[in-house]
Amino acid sequence: MRKSPNSENSSNKIFSFSKDKSFTEVKARVRYSETDRMGVAHNRNYFEWFEIGRTEFCRQKNIPYKEIEKQGYYLVVVESFCQYKKPLGYDDPFLIRVSLEKISSKKVVFVYELVTEKEKKKIASGYTVHFVTNAQAKVCSLPAEILMKLKA
Amino acid sequence: MRKSPNSENSSNKIFSFSKDKSFTEVKARVRYSETDRMGVAHNRNYFEWFEIGRTEFCRQKNIPYKEIEKQGYYLVVVESFCQYKKPLGYDDPFLIRVSLEKISSKKVVFVYELVTEKEKKKIASGYTVHFVTNAQAKVCSLPAEILMKLKA
Amino acid sequence: MRKSPNSENSSNKIFSFSKDKSFTEVKARVRYSETDRMGVAHNRNYFEWFEIGRTEFCRQKNIPYKEIEKQGYYLVVVESFCQYKKPLGYDDPFLIRVSLEKISSKKVVFVYELVTEKEKKKIASGYTVHFVTNAQAKVCSLPAEILMKLKA
Amino acid sequence: MRKSPNSENSSNKIFSFSKDKSFTEVKARVRYSETDRMGVAHNRNYFEWFEIGRTEFCRQKNIPYKEIEKQGYYLVVVESFCQYKKPLGYDDPFLIRVSLEKISSKKVVFVYELVTEKEKKKIASGYTVHFVTNAQAKVCSLPAEILMKLKA
Repeated sequence: MRKSPNSENSSNKIFSFSKDKSFTEVKARVRYSETDRMGVAHNRNYFEWFEIGRTEFCRQKNIPYKEIEKQGYYLVVVESFCQYKKPLGYDDPFLIRVSLEKISSKKVVFVYELVTEKEKKKIASGYTVHFVTNAQAKVCSLPAEILMKLKA
Repeated sequence: MRKSPNSENSSNKIFSFSKDKSFTEVKARVRYSETDRMGVAHNRNYFEWFEIGRTEFCRQKNIPYKEIEKQGYYLVVVESFCQYKKPLGYDDPFLIRVSLEKISSKKVVFVYELVTEKEKKKIASGYTVHFVTNAQAKVCSLPAEILMKLKA
Repeated sequence: MRKSPNSENSSNKIFSFSKDKSFTEVKARVRYSETDRMGVAHNRNYFEWFEIGRTEFCRQKNIPYKEIEKQGYYLVVVESFCQYKKPLGYDDPFLIRVSLEKISSKKVVFVYELVTEKEKKKIASGYTVHFVTNAQAKVCSLPAEILMKLKA
Repeated sequence: MRKSPNSENSSNKIFSFSKDKSFTEVKARVRYSETDRMGVAHNRNYFEWFEIGRTEFCRQKNIPYKEIEKQGYYLVVVESFCQYKKPLGYDDPFLIRVSLEKISSKKVVFVYELVTEKEKKKIASGYTVHFVTNAQAKVCSLPAEILMKLKA
């Protein structure tokens, strides 16, 4: 069956963090260049912010993403999704939260939430799905050591 | 029920265009600045390309998006999704196809496909959901005239 | 006389900070999305980084740039320049330094240096020239209060 | 002597094209994502547009830039400059003009002009200076064949 993007339940809190989920948190601010003529942060930036979150997630797991690539493995984005709840203005401070939703040696799913700095109100949430590939863009498996560190 | 992004069917051809669907098509090329250190177009650019598609869609419907905003209406992105099938390299030519999936006076859904210029192989597909707001960011209704043009 | 960009002295340390100059400093890291297929940060990002520096400069002077715009004044960029000395890779930490080179009620010049976090090696330097305008994009004068704060 | 960016003549039509200069021209439009909260195209985009111009310049000289890199040569940007004369709004069509100002086997200088599509009014002008490097980022010389094509 073809699921349509306009199905009534397509936007139903799909990507809320589990209450008991641990997450990595990074503070960021909206750059002037990230706003658009509507006066708020443009939708594309959220995917850059998700990526900043992933970078910090890996660093905190003691396996910087740069190091993963150095070893010849790439977490290629095959799917990305974002729901926008509350606009962000220029220079607004906010928190990027990222959590590992699922991981296997061939596929990794990260979930994200952006919240306001003080009151932790939800700004946006989303997810990205990644396949593991080698430098030749062939699907492969993450070595056990990296897998264990990310899962830790 | 909480639907998880890692459910097995989350990636199942959700956003394929219907075979009989009409669409607007724009040619584009990958800018050098749109590539990343993996050597291919970065995932965030696809959302900019979708937007280029929307701009052309509205123009071809004789209601340029600039004109819609001039009249005080905004199609604010509340959800965006992209599936990446095939990488794009620097300077690669491709086609952006956009189609109106659903429209009401308060909500609009666009679906997209990127295909290679010659063989029309699928590069990516996705959708964006928009709410209609006024200049004060309050949800409102698109006037009948704009609605009719977009539906035409 | 027409000065050519290829004149021999065009690259001669034009925008070094004066030794005794005070500056505002912000730490940043290269985002994955800021790299290009050459594997290093793309030249356009430096202008976004300069802008982050300006934002912090104004904040430290107790007149956030957001507040300047709220009062109806805009520091429109009319000229921008950057010299690239040393490439930046993904996730590399660096410092953005910004200093006010010149200010009058109608024109402001900022100078910038990017240096490595630890050894303070020069990565890039540049400047931006700004005209003061009102919301209607007409050139106007900064009020004395803002001018004094920026000069402080 | 230290030349200051605030010297009176720093903005004096430095980068006007020579009247008799031939140039490559590409049409472009401002993307929504390229505007900022001021409602006009953000200053950083101009450097992306210059790059689009370079790409077309090389293509028209029958030596696509992608091909130059494939042969192992890189035109690394070491200096970039832009003067902004007239703002560009969302969806505004404009022409990117690029011309080769100077070329040797080790250094290339491109100059640019952006003009309005119909009346050819000047929007911006600038230049970029490039050093030739190999894949290891070492300065090297462009082979005669590439040099000749670019000069043609």
